[in-house]
Parts: sequence; C-alpha cells; structure tokens
Amino acid sequence: MKIDVTLLPSQLEKRELAGKAVVVIDVLRATSTVATALANGCREVVPILEPADAEAVVRDLPPGSFLLGGERRGLKIPGFDLGNSPTEYRPEVVGGKTVILSTTNGTRAAILSREADVVAFGSFLNARAVAAYCRERCGELILACAGRVGDFSLEDTVCAGMIISYLHGAGDGRQTGPAREFEPEYAPENGPGPELTDSALAARLLYERYEGRLDRALDESGHGRYLAKIGLGDDLAACAAVDTIPLVPIFRDGRIIRWSPS
Amino acid sequence: MKIDVTLLPSQLEKRELAGKAVVVIDVLRATSTVATALANGCREVVPILEPADAEAVVRDLPPGSFLLGGERRGLKIPGFDLGNSPTEYRPEVVGGKTVILSTTNGTRAAILSREADVVAFGSFLNARAVAAYCRERCGELILACAGRVGDFSLEDTVCAGMIISYLHGAGDGRQTGPAREFEPEYAPENGPGPELTDSALAARLLYERYEGRLDRALDESGHGRYLAKIGLGDDLAACAAVDTIPLVPIFRDGRIIRWSPS
Repeated sequence: MKIDVTLLPSQLEKRELAGKAVVVIDVLRATSTVATALANGCREVVPILEPADAEAVVRDLPPGSFLLGGERRGLKIPGFDLGNSPTEYRPEVVGGKTVILSTTNGTRAAILSREADVVAFGSFLNARAVAAYCRERCGELILACAGRVGDFSLEDTVCAGMIISYLHGAGDGRQTGPAREFEPEYAPENGPGPELTDSALAARLLYERYEGRLDRALDESGHGRYLAKIGLGDDLAACAAVDTIPLVPIFRDGRIIRWSPS
Repeated sequence: MKIDVTLLPSQLEKRELAGKAVVVIDVLRATSTVATALANGCREVVPILEPADAEAVVRDLPPGSFLLGGERRGLKIPGFDLGNSPTEYRPEVVGGKTVILSTTNGTRAAILSREADVVAFGSFLNARAVAAYCRERCGELILACAGRVGDFSLEDTVCAGMIISYLHGAGDGRQTGPAREFEPEYAPENGPGPELTDSALAARLLYERYEGRLDRALDESGHGRYLAKIGLGDDLAACAAVDTIPLVPIFRDGRIIRWSPS
C-alpha cells in the first residue's frame, strides 16, 4: 500500500485525489469531535465552510432534528448550539440528531478532499478502526493533516504516524518507553511493506517518539497550548484517549456517517 | 530565540521575512555544494533561477573567471561546466572562480528568501558553523527547508533539527544510540529556552532519531533513493559528513559569499 501524508492543506490541494482514499486528521478537535458525536448516536454530521452556510442546510430539516456546532478561534460560534469540544457531544445531546458543523481546519480539509474516492476522518480516538478501514480499501492512501490555519500541526502528524504504524502491524499504541530502534521495514530493499513518502516516514517516526504518551504531543503542540490558554485544556485529555471509539466517520455526498469494522 | 521551520517552499512564501534571519537548507545537494565550493576557494556563488539567466550574469565577467554549475532532474545542465555534486567542486576546479549556479530547489529557496535581513545556507557539512552564526545574529530565525520540487523532504528537515539541537546546546551531532528521552526544555513552563513552533519541534525530534547516523536519513529519503538510482549515490556520503566545513555561505545582493566564525 502506498501511503502519503500531506502535512499542510496547501499540499493536499496539489495532490491528485481521484481513485485514492483520504483520511482527514484534525485531532484538536474536529475529527475527534465528529467521531465522538457519531459514537454517541448522532445521526450524521454535515460539514459547512462558513457559519452562514448553515441556513441552507437546516431549511429542509424538521425543527428539533438538528444542532449547530463549531468554532472560530477555538470558541463556540455565536448563536450556535455547541462548540467544538468532544465532551459537549454527549448521547443525551446528540442522539438521533443531525449536527451541522463548521470548524476552522477540519471541515475545510474535508471539503478539500471531496474529489477522492473515499474520505474518512481519523483521530487518536479511532485510529485503529481507521487503519482497519484503510486495510479493507487498499489502494493509495493519503493521510491529510488539517493543520492549524494552513500551517503545520504536530498532533495531526503524530496521528497520521499512528495510523501508519497500525497499518504496518507494529505497536498497539499503548507501548511506553523510549522509541524503538529502526525497523528493517523502512529500508527500501526490504519491500513489499507499505511504500512511504518522506512525509509519511517522518510522521511515523514522530508517532514513535510520542507512542504511549500522546497527551504529551497535545501538551507540547502550539494548538494544545492555545486551547489550554483559552480555558479548553480539558479537551486535550478528551482528544488524547487511544482507540476508545471503534468506528470511522465517512464523508460522502456532503454528509458524514459512520462505518464500523465488521 | 524564536525558531520556526518552514517544511515547504509554499510555507516560506507566506512568512513575513523582514527583520528575520533565514537559513536555507537543501542537503541534497545545493547547500552542501555551495559550502564545499566556498571552502575550496571559490570566490562567490551567484544563484540563478533558470539556466538561461546565466548569460546576463557572465556578460560582465572576464573569460576564465567563472564556471556554470547546476542540475535539472539531478543531472548536469547541458552546456554547463559542473553538475550539483559537492565532489565536483574541488580546489583545483573552483579556486578563485565565480560559480553561477542553478538548481531545482535550493537556489529557488534562496531567491524566495531575499526579503529577510540575513540569508545563510545550511547543510550537515556546516551545521555547527551555521548555529554559531545564528547565535551571533539572535532575533527571530526561520530554517527554510528547500524541499523537493515543492514537497516535503526528510533530509532538509533533519538538518533543520540538527541546527536547532546545536542552538539548544545539546548534542554534538556525533552521538550514537537510541534517541534520548524527552528533555525538560521542551515543556513550555521551562522557558526561557528557544521558542519552537510545532514544525521546529518536529524537526528537532526527527534529528534526534537520526543523530549519529545521518547517512541513514539520506539513504531513506525519497531524494536520496532517486540520486542513488541515477548513479549519484556517492553524493549521499559527500553530503552526510558532519561539521567538516567551518564556514557559512551568506546570500547578499545576489551573491553568496563566505562567513567564518571568529
């Protein structure tokens, strides 16, 4: 399986996506929030670029059947029901509902990926399910880090590396201690393992550095530090849980629905 | 000292450069070649974007005083004197000469950086001298990975991490064995150490993974594998030497000249 990682949205824009599977990763917090919402019984999530786009979506929905969620600069959008904290999307809040979601990075990356054959959402919470989904799809895979306002984000890259690590069949994400020595599968002469681009290899190495202490990647990242500063530090713990959600959000025809490994 | 790393040229294009120092890094091979040429007595290097731009530069130079160097797709440009292998730039070839150089990634990144206060060239060969130079300049520093045809390159990022590691005063680049445990200086509460962006932290962690075996980063990188495939594998060893050149190429007024730590 050929695996590429786009570290920035601008890299994703330049990729040929047709025929490929894309996994959008926005650990803090959109893809963690979407996985949580679907795990808690939310019917579907409709990503929108701008808060004003919500109007056209809700026009056809019965009152009480939907919620508006999302953030700008990390904070809940004025007039919306929910922000972008996974902990807000509890079963009693989102059960049976459609969530219309607008976030700064994650929903944009999802919409950028529309030309791909398949678009899935990955986070620390569901990385193992995402790897299972990718294994079934085979073909070429792009792990698309949503990044932070167009820039590189450490936590998304670490999550991409985690999914690669699972696809390689190494590690269960819970191992502690120092990074392992190089494994022979990295060497090009040791095919036929997954073919990794430079950014995919870098992502995997960064994941190995934080394996077993993903909370640390969030604490050290610029975005994590920002969220802590604006009083949303609890979200870091909520997004650092490993493989607690055994489903994959799939983006299709403008809607995000759930896929579960059989 | 605030340190940022731009992983791709497109990231560098978006940065405000005025008042900052930029170190352009193109380990394979432009910045390694320029450092080697200047160490071997080359008078100055004039980077040009396109081979055709050479004509205007050489018009004012006496015959015999200059050489044309550079590559496209890794290979010497037709009609030019030299390719982009450091080993070609020997003392008896480049001594006292002006080299006009056009490469795919490195010279482009240099020209992109023109608005910065200072533009230096970094490589594994002169990373320690570059760190000494940056320490003297202080202020805000951007380590600009030239990348590979606009995309991420492992070896440039590892080199950026090496320079950061030197600026932190940790490691001498020759240490072997597994990556060290996390150091307390990464934690934001442990200021006043250098402030690192997410990409700068990632670069440093990647460097620590390859510390003492930089040849391996080159062997595993996509660009390194490409060069080996087209018969330029010897260049990897030439670019993997650590701190063999105690000078810094500085780009000023369209020309690259040498700076040596006092």
